[in-house]
Amino acid sequence: MKIDILTLFPEMFKGVTESSIIKNAIEKKLVDVTATDFRPFSTHRQGHVDDYPYGGGAGMLLMAQPLFDAVAHLKKDEVKPRVILLDPAGVPYTQKLAEELAQEEQLIMICGHYEGYDERIREHLVTDEISIGDYILTGGEVGAMAIMDSVVRLLPGALGNDESAITDSFSTGLLEHPHYTRPAEFRGLEVPSILTSGHHANIERWRHEESLRRTAVRRPDLLEVYPLTDEDRAFLKAENLFEAKETNI
Amino acid sequence: MKIDILTLFPEMFKGVTESSIIKNAIEKKLVDVTATDFRPFSTHRQGHVDDYPYGGGAGMLLMAQPLFDAVAHLKKDEVKPRVILLDPAGVPYTQKLAEELAQEEQLIMICGHYEGYDERIREHLVTDEISIGDYILTGGEVGAMAIMDSVVRLLPGALGNDESAITDSFSTGLLEHPHYTRPAEFRGLEVPSILTSGHHANIERWRHEESLRRTAVRRPDLLEVYPLTDEDRAFLKAENLFEAKETNI
Repeated sequence: MKIDILTLFPEMFKGVTESSIIKNAIEKKLVDVTATDFRPFSTHRQGHVDDYPYGGGAGMLLMAQPLFDAVAHLKKDEVKPRVILLDPAGVPYTQKLAEELAQEEQLIMICGHYEGYDERIREHLVTDEISIGDYILTGGEVGAMAIMDSVVRLLPGALGNDESAITDSFSTGLLEHPHYTRPAEFRGLEVPSILTSGHHANIERWRHEESLRRTAVRRPDLLEVYPLTDEDRAFLKAENLFEAKETNI
Repeated sequence: MKIDILTLFPEMFKGVTESSIIKNAIEKKLVDVTATDFRPFSTHRQGHVDDYPYGGGAGMLLMAQPLFDAVAHLKKDEVKPRVILLDPAGVPYTQKLAEELAQEEQLIMICGHYEGYDERIREHLVTDEISIGDYILTGGEVGAMAIMDSVVRLLPGALGNDESAITDSFSTGLLEHPHYTRPAEFRGLEVPSILTSGHHANIERWRHEESLRRTAVRRPDLLEVYPLTDEDRAFLKAENLFEAKETNI
């Protein structure tokens, strides 16, 4: 996979591309990541990339020309890239979208910084507008890092087994149950005795019920689409946790 | 404000702390950011920070001791910090939470990497568990960058006027309307004539309606809590955009 990032701050990506999973994936040639400054693509004599909005208003907008030309430069003849605009008005980013993007040959991610985008960029240059969450960031760079990290770890060979096991279980549709490791007692705080009981079936049931409990309390929206069994429903009712997701009971 | 990050990969933060808004805010002494490796806090003779889960299962868990001691080391007597665990099972991060965190004197953010957390960390060490979105990242580092970026830009004096104007309007509760900048025609693609008309009242109405339209199409969930006027409802009905948010019409 080829990941190209268009940004005015390419140096922001060094810490992420030179560490951990992404560094390893680059070394294993699973992915090639390049952060490119799009300012040199400006045909403006002073290298301007932004200008005032038509119709008035504060703030600056990124102009179409530098980004159209930068994307054209990064496209290869044989590949149709996903061209992604990082923007709070985009579709919310999800694990499902990460899995979809991990199938692509090339991602080009466009990061604005302070500025808005000329609408012609949205309408005629990009294939996707993505928001990583309902909060405002200085620019698209941290969003591009989030997409890059979540996509690269899905590439075959990028993760070892130990690295993937725990976090992947979020993909079950429930939040993780509590985990405990040694020591069995830490400063007076003990591990639940069931976990040291050796009864595997009981441990599995406890873990599943604690996943249900945590999800019901923190993210009832996830339970609305989770396929609850009769036993799950009985547990949630017995624990008085069913109110938040009555539509599913 | 003091921001402390506890991570096994402190070098990942250099690109972000040495660029743009955060760099400026550090230079203006609005914020002091330190990324600290918590491995040296381990009392294990080989510096281990993780171990296997009680009750079996794959994957490793971060142990309580190194993180309890690292947080204790970072706490100052006179300040009660927010201690934030980055985790997909946390509460979804929002702009409202960013605004709340921006009032604090000290944030300590704990970044796991591959591993899960011993439950005693959640229960007895942290004040907040936060998820930046429903996707899986290699570790908490990119999440900590997102929180840091969104919080620092809210500190008084961190942003210039030009930098804040456009992205802040997302805070109205609607997605941004389309923006256009020069040239008026770019490769055959024209700016809507209303924006070059000079009729400010018409321009404002067009912008508001296009915000409503984009929000109705992309994020009907936001319209459910937006205080629609009678005029807004009439526009959405006339445009056949009211189905997705019938509860509010």
